[in-house]
Amino acid sequence: MNWDQVFASRTARMKASEIRELLKLLDQPDIISFAGGIPDPALFPTAEFQAAISGILSGPKAEAALQYSVSEGYLPLREWIAGRMAQLGVPCDAGNILITSGSQQALDYLGKLLLSPKDTALVGWPTYLGALGAFNAYEPEYDRLDPHANRAAADYADAATAKGGRVKFAYLSVDFANPTGETLDRAARLKTLELAEALDIAIIEDAAYQSLRFDGEAIPPILALEVAQKGSVEDCRTLYCGSFSKTLAPGLRVGWVCGAKEVIGRLVLMKQAADLHSPSLNQMAIAEVAGAIFDSHVGKIRAAYCARRDAMLAALAAHMPAGVEWTRPEGGMFVWVTLPKGLDGAELLARSLQTQRVAFVPGSAFFADGSGRNTLRLSFSRVDEAVIAEGIKRLGALLRQM
Amino acid sequence: MNWDQVFASRTARMKASEIRELLKLLDQPDIISFAGGIPDPALFPTAEFQAAISGILSGPKAEAALQYSVSEGYLPLREWIAGRMAQLGVPCDAGNILITSGSQQALDYLGKLLLSPKDTALVGWPTYLGALGAFNAYEPEYDRLDPHANRAAADYADAATAKGGRVKFAYLSVDFANPTGETLDRAARLKTLELAEALDIAIIEDAAYQSLRFDGEAIPPILALEVAQKGSVEDCRTLYCGSFSKTLAPGLRVGWVCGAKEVIGRLVLMKQAADLHSPSLNQMAIAEVAGAIFDSHVGKIRAAYCARRDAMLAALAAHMPAGVEWTRPEGGMFVWVTLPKGLDGAELLARSLQTQRVAFVPGSAFFADGSGRNTLRLSFSRVDEAVIAEGIKRLGALLRQM
Repeated sequence: MNWDQVFASRTARMKASEIRELLKLLDQPDIISFAGGIPDPALFPTAEFQAAISGILSGPKAEAALQYSVSEGYLPLREWIAGRMAQLGVPCDAGNILITSGSQQALDYLGKLLLSPKDTALVGWPTYLGALGAFNAYEPEYDRLDPHANRAAADYADAATAKGGRVKFAYLSVDFANPTGETLDRAARLKTLELAEALDIAIIEDAAYQSLRFDGEAIPPILALEVAQKGSVEDCRTLYCGSFSKTLAPGLRVGWVCGAKEVIGRLVLMKQAADLHSPSLNQMAIAEVAGAIFDSHVGKIRAAYCARRDAMLAALAAHMPAGVEWTRPEGGMFVWVTLPKGLDGAELLARSLQTQRVAFVPGSAFFADGSGRNTLRLSFSRVDEAVIAEGIKRLGALLRQM
Repeated sequence: MNWDQVFASRTARMKASEIRELLKLLDQPDIISFAGGIPDPALFPTAEFQAAISGILSGPKAEAALQYSVSEGYLPLREWIAGRMAQLGVPCDAGNILITSGSQQALDYLGKLLLSPKDTALVGWPTYLGALGAFNAYEPEYDRLDPHANRAAADYADAATAKGGRVKFAYLSVDFANPTGETLDRAARLKTLELAEALDIAIIEDAAYQSLRFDGEAIPPILALEVAQKGSVEDCRTLYCGSFSKTLAPGLRVGWVCGAKEVIGRLVLMKQAADLHSPSLNQMAIAEVAGAIFDSHVGKIRAAYCARRDAMLAALAAHMPAGVEWTRPEGGMFVWVTLPKGLDGAELLARSLQTQRVAFVPGSAFFADGSGRNTLRLSFSRVDEAVIAEGIKRLGALLRQM
């Protein structure tokens, strides 16, 4: 059978990610890897999950845990999340929360909700690779979102019209973003909001790393800044995507969207048609463990990752040659390195694997336009301090030779 | 904010299902409900899941159970499923299996893979409501698939061209289908395959109820019949969607697609972009419980549902007035009732709720063209035999008055 003639046109945009293919090759014990960017499993609250699930499956909630459930998600979990959102400056209730299978699913659903082919999505240069992957299925165009540039709204709108669609949303990760580790300051958040107002578009605020702040002052989410302006989440254009993947456990696949009920209602219908609901047991387990230990557990994770970030920044300062620059993240899992112009991250990786056995992700994959060849992403989340020092030292030595 | 101007055009097809809204109203203790169509939670292997999960989270697999994982799914589970597929006449390996979050997600992904707007999907009149919901997001047209009609392939192709697209697939549930309870005989399966060959389209074979056969002779899946013709699953156009929701537990959301590696590879990329992977812990738990007790457990479920089907068929024979017809399912959860022309299932439901406190689903919702007003779906899966007898008796009494 010639499958190409029955595949939908959108499949042309679904390609194997070079990075993910690369990462598969890096899983060798003698490699020091700054590549992955996933949580350290030693920090999972495994015993707490075991106790919670054991209790659920031996008690009166067992049948509900294994049965079909509602598409919007488990009510006590939605209520707990609504409480956290209120602490972040977004007073809301369970009706403003949809549970998704990780925040990756939230990005997929929001692309599905908002993008017709040829519509424009505004994204950072660079941005989260998984967001581009999710949106690509809906065949959008991309334009560069840069809250620090003074580009007029009309210019964005005209560019989108020329491409055959309309600007539909601005996507951004505001705290310790993947891949740069950078945090958007309050002025830039407000400017993004202003741009969205002028274009009358949605904002997709990816807050996957929000809880992982090590130091510096917390800045309110864009959604909170918008609620402060408008008085109610129901009047807001920002859709906030949260996740338990970086705080409790990614393998359970529990995330959420917080936004106006008008939008949440649409997303509930979409989820009903797409996978009925996220697993009931997983939502119950997350609700119990989050309710019992969220703050203390996240405190532990922050301390561990903070020590690793410190080790990485110290090693970069000690070993990188002049002309190499890097970000100083206040949280999260990533440092973003910019090499002198002319150097190529992919080439560096090839040489590094050969001679130094140190891995990282070349940065160009995170750019919707394929630029950024002289950048790379380093993750410190799964490597202990001594190994970080050694790996960065080797990388510095290699760069001095280039 | 005026959300309508940023919503994608596909959202026009995402509507609240009248049935699901209706079902919410029926959850009252004094109502005898033949409406739902979900498994009886008393039949879940709860203790086995508790033991399996407890073992996983206290042993060496704990970290993997809570960590990110690969998009294709947990290898031991895929291997177990491949073994079952071989028993059904489909020799294959783990590379032919994608794990999905329930078979509902498989339907969503297959719609996403195959349907561009205005393409045609062939579906039964009636068909599974959730399949129409999943496909609608991709803005297809529908045409009627009737393996017993002798409609020429060219006629299907011309109708699709006139609607602005191409026929992409035939969707059907072959064993004890939701909603009719009917099983497609071998000749009709072969005829469907022939039609698909002539149109050069895919077949989506929904096998959600396949394991729930009470009596009669098992008929090979369409995919097995096709493998017998072509020699290898790699040359087949049939994509088989399976599920653990009716056999072990729906709340864990584990299903699968079995098909040619060329298609599975595409679906893996799609899943990676859409939700990364189905929850690791859930896949491990299903693999352990299925490996230990699948056949014996399904035997218990079949015996329980068989007794309920028998009670329902006996009660229908005893209490239905002349002119009412119904199917005699060899498995599954549903009996499909056809009322004399002129009677309306929705009207009957309104009167039944008022005077008899008996609920069911009016059949017209299952027709892509809104026809079938004189039909209704009865589910026997969650009602014990005595209550079934009483409910059908009341329904018969009401019908005699109409």
